[in-house]
Amino acid sequence: MTAYDPDNIFAKILRGEIPSTRVYEDDDTLAFMDIMPRADGHLLVIPKTPCRNLLDASPAQLAAVMATTQKLSHAVVNAFGADGVTIQQFNEAAGGQEVFHLHFHVLPRHADVSLRAPGQMGDFDVIAQHAEQIKAALA
Amino acid sequence: MTAYDPDNIFAKILRGEIPSTRVYEDDDTLAFMDIMPRADGHLLVIPKTPCRNLLDASPAQLAAVMATTQKLSHAVVNAFGADGVTIQQFNEAAGGQEVFHLHFHVLPRHADVSLRAPGQMGDFDVIAQHAEQIKAALA
Repeated sequence: MTAYDPDNIFAKILRGEIPSTRVYEDDDTLAFMDIMPRADGHLLVIPKTPCRNLLDASPAQLAAVMATTQKLSHAVVNAFGADGVTIQQFNEAAGGQEVFHLHFHVLPRHADVSLRAPGQMGDFDVIAQHAEQIKAALA
Repeated sequence: MTAYDPDNIFAKILRGEIPSTRVYEDDDTLAFMDIMPRADGHLLVIPKTPCRNLLDASPAQLAAVMATTQKLSHAVVNAFGADGVTIQQFNEAAGGQEVFHLHFHVLPRHADVSLRAPGQMGDFDVIAQHAEQIKAALA
């Protein structure tokens, strides 16, 4: 497997070199909004330490990321009255991965609402409003 | 959230009341083939103890299931020469869940091969052959 690239965009987000809309942070993980949301409130959970994806993650990284993914899943259910949550995690380009820092997608779902097609940039004001709703649900 | 239903089909698989094509088992988790594979080698990882999905799983259940999901991801890469792996985990019907016992989908991926549409029953002989390849990779 290719080595971890410390210049991937999530590494830059972690270092504060490029902006993100953060909704949750602890010692080991960060959660922030996806800028191409496939559902309202679509967010990403990443470890703060480097790993490329599930294939090279440590047990500690996985446990921390899963705990935050669970916490944020509850938060989006509460924030948006979601009826369900879809979790996606992509490994390597063939597996759907585009940024090579381990991340879990948390997608709030409502009955009879399909996911939007991937790759469509969201409205930043709307994303910021959704982030506030998630933060309020976590408070 | 609805209570755990001990008569869901994965609970019956765990109790041996209905058949499954098992590829891996430890004290806490079981991995078996999806009978409607969206990719060759598509398998599921579940905890042996009851929980409905990510929303009610315990930290111990999540850690165990993630460790097995990682182990089986490596196994399918080795078994099929996969270029990547897609992980999906669905919560509640609106989130895509159809069987209400926590499960992670492990989907081996190859470059330029799309996932097949959901809901199509696989050929049992082919699934059994793929299971043998995965077990050999784990051996």
